[in-house]
Amino acid sequence: MAGFPAPLKRLMDELIKLPGVGPKSAQRLMMHFLRAPEDDLKRLAEALLKLKSSVRLCSRCFHLSEAELCDICADASRDTSMVCVVEEPIDLIALERINEYRGAYHVLHGAISPLDGVKPENLRIGELMNRLRKDGIREVIIATNTNLEGETTALYIAERMKESFPDVRVTRIARGLPMGGEMDYADQVTLIRALEGRVEM
Amino acid sequence: MAGFPAPLKRLMDELIKLPGVGPKSAQRLMMHFLRAPEDDLKRLAEALLKLKSSVRLCSRCFHLSEAELCDICADASRDTSMVCVVEEPIDLIALERINEYRGAYHVLHGAISPLDGVKPENLRIGELMNRLRKDGIREVIIATNTNLEGETTALYIAERMKESFPDVRVTRIARGLPMGGEMDYADQVTLIRALEGRVEM
Repeated sequence: MAGFPAPLKRLMDELIKLPGVGPKSAQRLMMHFLRAPEDDLKRLAEALLKLKSSVRLCSRCFHLSEAELCDICADASRDTSMVCVVEEPIDLIALERINEYRGAYHVLHGAISPLDGVKPENLRIGELMNRLRKDGIREVIIATNTNLEGETTALYIAERMKESFPDVRVTRIARGLPMGGEMDYADQVTLIRALEGRVEM
Repeated sequence: MAGFPAPLKRLMDELIKLPGVGPKSAQRLMMHFLRAPEDDLKRLAEALLKLKSSVRLCSRCFHLSEAELCDICADASRDTSMVCVVEEPIDLIALERINEYRGAYHVLHGAISPLDGVKPENLRIGELMNRLRKDGIREVIIATNTNLEGETTALYIAERMKESFPDVRVTRIARGLPMGGEMDYADQVTLIRALEGRVEM
């Protein structure tokens, strides 16, 4: 059986390692690269090569950053008395996209998951406690995911805060029916949360 | 609104250009690259950079190749009296995978498509006619896709061959019910072809 020439096989092997890329889509990507202008390939290759060396974690909130402090922590117009705790940088990006929140962030880089061996000490929770000790933070909004791991992490942080910083307000993002959602399509847990979290009209 | 640092934005911009990659999967790929070992990124970048310079088209069959002749055309054990015509290199790979065919190939690099402005002269059809003129080819198997463009291309090649090379056999791959297929799930055109192409048992 003859296949692709060796340089193509090497590229295929690398592409198949990517998340969500199987043999079929690797082939499709490769045919795209073969047809793409040389400059496009160069730009992509350079962006890949520069990625690691040009990006680090913000020393305060652990968001991805080019400098010691990320754009948000370096922005003097941000309200630093409020810290929103998220699991991953992409969650922070999602929140920034709605253009509503003007406080600071804290990126945990994961969630507590005994099954995957992720313990509280593997996350940036200690660093959050240190921030609470130093900075004048008045409220911590916990915006971890609403799955088992995210809820466990939220509870864990809330409890540690109540022990060590009883004067700091801890809140959790609302859980309920998503906008545009239909009652009879919602799962049971969502409906329970939606009921529990009902607000005055 | 703050987002990803500039080096990540640059990578995102390149990833979004890829087929089948939207903003969400570009983000996912980027987070994967951030976590991946530096060596993985280097290997992928190098494979991309070397792609264009290391691969060309076989001068005989126009399959992707490292050398003047591709592995198949250079293989003396292949039966060169038989040529299988396919639209794209990946179609050739698919045929090689079944390990049944021992003849030669001819890659058209597309199919006739008036809507997309692809005319016969944009494909490697002239080169196929030249091969028929020189090489001792006895049969041409047309294995273009069974969609409108592929069927049009198959008809076009068959007619040109009947004019210029009436002694060379032209065949078309069988069209019918796929194996494991169910009659009542097959579309009408497939059923018509399956009936027309019925064979003695």
